[in-house]
Amino acid sequence: MDQRPIAVFDSGLGGLTVVRALRDRLPAEDIVYLGDTARVPYGSKTPETVKRFAREICAFLLRMNPKCIVAACNTASAVCLPELADEFSAPLIGAVTPGARSAVDASNPGDLLAVIGTEATIASNAYRNAIHTIDPDRPVVQVACPLFVPIVEEGVSATDPIVNMVIDRYLAPMRRLKPAAVLLGCTHYPIIHDAIAAYFGDNVTLIDSGDATAQMADAILTRLGALSDLRGRGSLHCYVSDHPRRFQAVGSHFLGEPIPDVVRVCPEELARDAERVLPTVPRASA
Amino acid sequence: MDQRPIAVFDSGLGGLTVVRALRDRLPAEDIVYLGDTARVPYGSKTPETVKRFAREICAFLLRMNPKCIVAACNTASAVCLPELADEFSAPLIGAVTPGARSAVDASNPGDLLAVIGTEATIASNAYRNAIHTIDPDRPVVQVACPLFVPIVEEGVSATDPIVNMVIDRYLAPMRRLKPAAVLLGCTHYPIIHDAIAAYFGDNVTLIDSGDATAQMADAILTRLGALSDLRGRGSLHCYVSDHPRRFQAVGSHFLGEPIPDVVRVCPEELARDAERVLPTVPRASA
Repeated sequence: MDQRPIAVFDSGLGGLTVVRALRDRLPAEDIVYLGDTARVPYGSKTPETVKRFAREICAFLLRMNPKCIVAACNTASAVCLPELADEFSAPLIGAVTPGARSAVDASNPGDLLAVIGTEATIASNAYRNAIHTIDPDRPVVQVACPLFVPIVEEGVSATDPIVNMVIDRYLAPMRRLKPAAVLLGCTHYPIIHDAIAAYFGDNVTLIDSGDATAQMADAILTRLGALSDLRGRGSLHCYVSDHPRRFQAVGSHFLGEPIPDVVRVCPEELARDAERVLPTVPRASA
Repeated sequence: MDQRPIAVFDSGLGGLTVVRALRDRLPAEDIVYLGDTARVPYGSKTPETVKRFAREICAFLLRMNPKCIVAACNTASAVCLPELADEFSAPLIGAVTPGARSAVDASNPGDLLAVIGTEATIASNAYRNAIHTIDPDRPVVQVACPLFVPIVEEGVSATDPIVNMVIDRYLAPMRRLKPAAVLLGCTHYPIIHDAIAAYFGDNVTLIDSGDATAQMADAILTRLGALSDLRGRGSLHCYVSDHPRRFQAVGSHFLGEPIPDVVRVCPEELARDAERVLPTVPRASA
């Protein structure tokens, strides 16, 4: 039994879809969440920059003595793991391995798997590599959808014609290939799940990497005997690097319940924390 | 005569449209440019966060001993000036006052002026206030267009149907009011100038705040006797906080010429610089 919180981080609001899945599955667990809203988005930035941000955030979260850290952010998961996992004492659970496992399990050998995500996630080939670790012969097609995140952050509804126009722009060549399953490799995409599902039609299974990540966290904590034995609903404490109000307003839509408590923290403080905890962090250069 | 460079900064690529206007107007001037591509966009973030970033950047640029600093970024201009101008020794030229002056000059008393910009720029009311300083009775209508920046950063062409659909979404209520002039209050918007112009039709004048800013910089440097008397074309040195390659590739489209030289700098280094130069910078809090 372990009453310590589960720490979750994301570039912004999107990771709250993973928090929602965790709270559905493990309602007694306390959760601390950090959304790096001052530096969002991550998906259009270089792996070096995303790594630096993720390292600072993990160092910050370790101050709260979590039993594990969930990198809800697919971009960070794709470009930093397992490198970052080696640096920290708490187990670091990313979105890519569980998402890949879920997609393989939901389809038959030889079926085409499709992966959609941010530019950085797709460029990393992390999902393709994770799928091939499980099934080396599996055909995989990947497409980056850079406008999905701003459209979702903007609060555009899934039924809006703009959403369908952008979906068609990015996904028409992929649909033509008739994949068996489409892996939503970004925490923002579940918000437009229904529009993507309607676009691909009934024969295509959509895989939410956030659900898969929550399932993996459950399995790991169960194996470690580290689930909480507290009764009642666990607490949720959120930290953001900008905009507590916007995060609360838009985020409750992602979380599916009101967000009770949001504290603002400074990116510079995160950076300084990282240096105290990790004095040998390499500096990024051109 | 003053051979020192003109410093220009923006949240990312957009400010290169202002650099283009400066180089057209003042070809002999050396220019140093900083694009904060690791933390772009600014327009959806709070004034406190944008001020902190802008203050760090100004402190960094002062190391290069510029004769003036141009805040090409409309969001930073709207939320930080004149507060930031009081902190620094070099003249700080923002986009808002010149844009407002240009819009008033291009229309008749009583004509409706329309302003479009980021959420932060519109929420600040900076353009409305600047217009009313010049002409207190001028009717002004303002609309935030949050998706324009990601669409332009994405490299979507001005003739793309997505651009027209998003323009119609944001600007239909404004067009119905028949403004005399529309002020493009964001450095990214000149890239979709033609689509916005076609949407409003021939009777509406579009004002580019970037052109107006370059004109104001010219006027201020002329008045101070601080123009360069060097022959030939001035140099351009660019610094970015992420992605030198993407900045060079997409940025040349904004600049209208190849970008010769891009150096990467760390946001954390900017922050430390700011603390050395400005030991009393207040820390942001929730």
